[in-house]
Amino acid sequence: MAVILGDNRYGKAEIRVVRVARDGEDHVLTDLNVSVSLAGDLAGTHLTGDNAAVLPTDTQKNTVFAFAKEQLGSGQPIETFAACLAKHFVDSQPTIHCARVSIVEYAWQRLGPHSFARTTNETRTVSAVYGPDQSDGTSAWIVSGLADLVLLNSADSEFHGYLKDGYTTLPETTDRILATAVEARWRYMSPSSRDWNTTFDRARAALVTAFVRTYSYSLQQTLYAMGQHALDVCPEIAEIRLAMPNKHHFAVDLAPFGLTNDNEVFVAADRPYGLIEGTVLRDDAPEPGLAWW
Amino acid sequence: MAVILGDNRYGKAEIRVVRVARDGEDHVLTDLNVSVSLAGDLAGTHLTGDNAAVLPTDTQKNTVFAFAKEQLGSGQPIETFAACLAKHFVDSQPTIHCARVSIVEYAWQRLGPHSFARTTNETRTVSAVYGPDQSDGTSAWIVSGLADLVLLNSADSEFHGYLKDGYTTLPETTDRILATAVEARWRYMSPSSRDWNTTFDRARAALVTAFVRTYSYSLQQTLYAMGQHALDVCPEIAEIRLAMPNKHHFAVDLAPFGLTNDNEVFVAADRPYGLIEGTVLRDDAPEPGLAWW
Amino acid sequence: MAVILGDNRYGKAEIRVVRVARDGEDHVLTDLNVSVSLAGDLAGTHLTGDNAAVLPTDTQKNTVFAFAKEQLGSGQPIETFAACLAKHFVDSQPTIHCARVSIVEYAWQRLGPHSFARTTNETRTVSAVYGPDQSDGTSAWIVSGLADLVLLNSADSEFHGYLKDGYTTLPETTDRILATAVEARWRYMSPSSRDWNTTFDRARAALVTAFVRTYSYSLQQTLYAMGQHALDVCPEIAEIRLAMPNKHHFAVDLAPFGLTNDNEVFVAADRPYGLIEGTVLRDDAPEPGLAWW
Amino acid sequence: MAVILGDNRYGKAEIRVVRVARDGEDHVLTDLNVSVSLAGDLAGTHLTGDNAAVLPTDTQKNTVFAFAKEQLGSGQPIETFAACLAKHFVDSQPTIHCARVSIVEYAWQRLGPHSFARTTNETRTVSAVYGPDQSDGTSAWIVSGLADLVLLNSADSEFHGYLKDGYTTLPETTDRILATAVEARWRYMSPSSRDWNTTFDRARAALVTAFVRTYSYSLQQTLYAMGQHALDVCPEIAEIRLAMPNKHHFAVDLAPFGLTNDNEVFVAADRPYGLIEGTVLRDDAPEPGLAWW
Repeated sequence: MAVILGDNRYGKAEIRVVRVARDGEDHVLTDLNVSVSLAGDLAGTHLTGDNAAVLPTDTQKNTVFAFAKEQLGSGQPIETFAACLAKHFVDSQPTIHCARVSIVEYAWQRLGPHSFARTTNETRTVSAVYGPDQSDGTSAWIVSGLADLVLLNSADSEFHGYLKDGYTTLPETTDRILATAVEARWRYMSPSSRDWNTTFDRARAALVTAFVRTYSYSLQQTLYAMGQHALDVCPEIAEIRLAMPNKHHFAVDLAPFGLTNDNEVFVAADRPYGLIEGTVLRDDAPEPGLAWW
Repeated sequence: MAVILGDNRYGKAEIRVVRVARDGEDHVLTDLNVSVSLAGDLAGTHLTGDNAAVLPTDTQKNTVFAFAKEQLGSGQPIETFAACLAKHFVDSQPTIHCARVSIVEYAWQRLGPHSFARTTNETRTVSAVYGPDQSDGTSAWIVSGLADLVLLNSADSEFHGYLKDGYTTLPETTDRILATAVEARWRYMSPSSRDWNTTFDRARAALVTAFVRTYSYSLQQTLYAMGQHALDVCPEIAEIRLAMPNKHHFAVDLAPFGLTNDNEVFVAADRPYGLIEGTVLRDDAPEPGLAWW
Repeated sequence: MAVILGDNRYGKAEIRVVRVARDGEDHVLTDLNVSVSLAGDLAGTHLTGDNAAVLPTDTQKNTVFAFAKEQLGSGQPIETFAACLAKHFVDSQPTIHCARVSIVEYAWQRLGPHSFARTTNETRTVSAVYGPDQSDGTSAWIVSGLADLVLLNSADSEFHGYLKDGYTTLPETTDRILATAVEARWRYMSPSSRDWNTTFDRARAALVTAFVRTYSYSLQQTLYAMGQHALDVCPEIAEIRLAMPNKHHFAVDLAPFGLTNDNEVFVAADRPYGLIEGTVLRDDAPEPGLAWW
Repeated sequence: MAVILGDNRYGKAEIRVVRVARDGEDHVLTDLNVSVSLAGDLAGTHLTGDNAAVLPTDTQKNTVFAFAKEQLGSGQPIETFAACLAKHFVDSQPTIHCARVSIVEYAWQRLGPHSFARTTNETRTVSAVYGPDQSDGTSAWIVSGLADLVLLNSADSEFHGYLKDGYTTLPETTDRILATAVEARWRYMSPSSRDWNTTFDRARAALVTAFVRTYSYSLQQTLYAMGQHALDVCPEIAEIRLAMPNKHHFAVDLAPFGLTNDNEVFVAADRPYGLIEGTVLRDDAPEPGLAWW
């Protein structure tokens, strides 16, 4: 019996880079939170502190800033920026075999030629992985997504017909508030490049539309309808993973005060909350490889 | 020498009430975080635990829910809801002499007749105080405001000509990013009721416009211009208080990588940050009374 | 009628400075979050952007680091460090008339000669103000304190005998959990220097002791007992201000599952929460001056 | 081509249960944050909103409270409570095939027979999975751990000999602060029950001891030493996974102020930060099965 080193990775997390493109009359603002994670020949640094194979996380940070200068022009999607960075780390360092670059993009609304307001907490996300060739010849993967898309339906949501046991007290309902904060991540049918912004806009719109249109009997049903609709309108998407908390809104009992409450007054609860996670995919989706690494 | 009880107050904080108005075809959603604070004949509970003068914070919470049912119709501004609650606590309980009701309102964007997205972190705020008559006969005060209005100018901001001492290393600059998260609170020339929503929209627009239009030599100058413009377009506002962090964006030195950086690549810093606080008011503003209680 | 500049101040917030004293065999670690706020002849920067009277917040930050080198030896209390910094800004800059230096100190437990664990979220705080002479000749004020001291009594807490109105549903109880996170700030009978660490230790111990020993009929009663005991054991303290949320723990109704619950199973609620704020002081306490500025 | 449902699970997250054991003279306090996640025959609810196979998350919450009454006696480790809950959901519901119960335990220090202080942010964690039999006959897995163990060495840390490329500016150092917040999770050689508290205490002590004792040439080396030492002193542990941010402390350049800085004054940085993740395991560790589900 011996103790050995297992899976490991390291990198620089949460590099807050802001890029201003000043080419035209209007400035273009790109506001990112970039995280890098690398794996490779890293036994030395773990076992003896020999760092000969280690690209410092400080260098990773510098690389992100330098690439932001050269690769983040106006309207450049985060997918190509992340992929380019991931490939750089593996291609330039023989000791690094796999790299993941994750980006969270903050949205700003234009107020003027060089004035902006940050008007939403919703973010666009990407995770680009570049690594050893898989059996199908693939060595690069892109997972696009969004987070903190907060949605609420104040009608068309029921919940009943569920299992009851000795611990069940929840009354069945044919009218409740359904509210959630969507986290979505999707991978693609092929690794080839594409118009990432158009796919993002279409996928996001599909998620929102399905949330609004679905008459819901469970948050799972809404989640599946959202994923299915995204796949329907985006043939380039192979698989979508959704995580959706059930942000409970409980109708307040106003009877003690001589008042009715026909689903008009709710308390928004913090904890606990339901958490629904599900995957919707095509039956001919390619192998994920290292997409979710 | 004796130990005595000084100023004190108590209440229920962060009551998360959501009101759905279902009168018309379209649901109207009002999403609030309400905090109550009361003062009065409270020596008993402090000194001996005699609670005869104490209206429980649980009752305060119930009152907020009950009033939400009856007072929060479609488009009702938070100013009148807060004022009505504050007055209730004082008028209904002889032991309570002063009440403050503070509300943070979360904004939702309509997606359909009963579907909504929460598309901003910016909030609208109010603090309504109802208390003992002041010498001018006033017994009710309203302070309206907003918070987390995040703004950024990527040009038209300089900073130079400041004091230098032995601890100064900051280089003067004629081109920097100016970014902030505005917190604004304003009180009124008279206690009379008004179209609160219109004032809010005008004041907010004035703050944003002045931020965008001001060629800035200091964040203080921008702050004053914002407050001044709000007073210019809203004669009903007597005084506005602004707190604006200077959210630093530092240009990254790319020279070591053979790259120039003409204010194109910045690192968004977390801490420390500048914090600028200032008041802009009319020289004939009435006494504040308990407005800021 | 004219628009004018009212109260204003500015500074650098949340300077995260860590000082390692390496004089002896054991390193001594001091971990601080320092915030500076200055006021003075600042009309120019507000009205025209003339910064001739402005000491940049970047310089304030540098000053904190430089003073940390020279003034933060082993075991130096934050009171003297804050006071020394506040005095420096006013004394060295004719345009600065008043300075507040607030410090939050994070505690570390020694694990070895140069090894430490951060074993509590509780912090020690200070706010030192240096400003224009008051009528009593005072120009320096110290407010010491602590924050996030989380305490819980699982017995000896009752709540009954309170006001009931049409919105009251809370049942009276003779046995409940009483839990809070204490924020305390105290000022002194005289501005003279003293053994700040000893006062802090005594005051903190008094607060904890009174919380543990008080058979409570209301959180207000507990708050007052804590403040009173701090003043009893610390004659140098003139006034103490306490803010104590009532962190509600509600007994869960287990009857539907055929179980009793004799105050054994509770749900810890997030929001809303009670918030109790109170002041305990000596009847011969000196005027506060700018202590709470 | 068809769109299909992939992996999915659902549950109730962050159930904040506090258990007071009142058997003896001294109350014993157990403060938990429990999250449940279930998988099984859930196609119906996703595809058609048929909830016949769904045990509501509200019922899961009730179950946690009821089990807290009966299973959480004095000193009961969270491992057995989590395992018992996970088994219950699968055994009692034919439609549920796999359950994970994750618990975060908050520590309280005794101040008196029924008085407590929460004196650390560090938490103890467990994830218990109960599911379909694996090929080796195992159907239950326990992963124990801890989080937010914040440690700092102010000496005995170097970093040099690393890769340099065109983006490297970091100077090599033979003296730096090494600080981190340890998250550790470990699984066991066998599924049998054991004295969980003793293992926890031993593993935690080993992690701390190795952090203190290791003369470090990289955070990876420290991480590996910590994992190795935990496995050395706990033969029952098969594998340990560690995630350790490198909480950077940068020495401040005081030369502009005529001062030296021999690693005495540091700025504690927020973002970005290094993130080191690694696994240390025995070469004869059993298959993990669903331990990390």
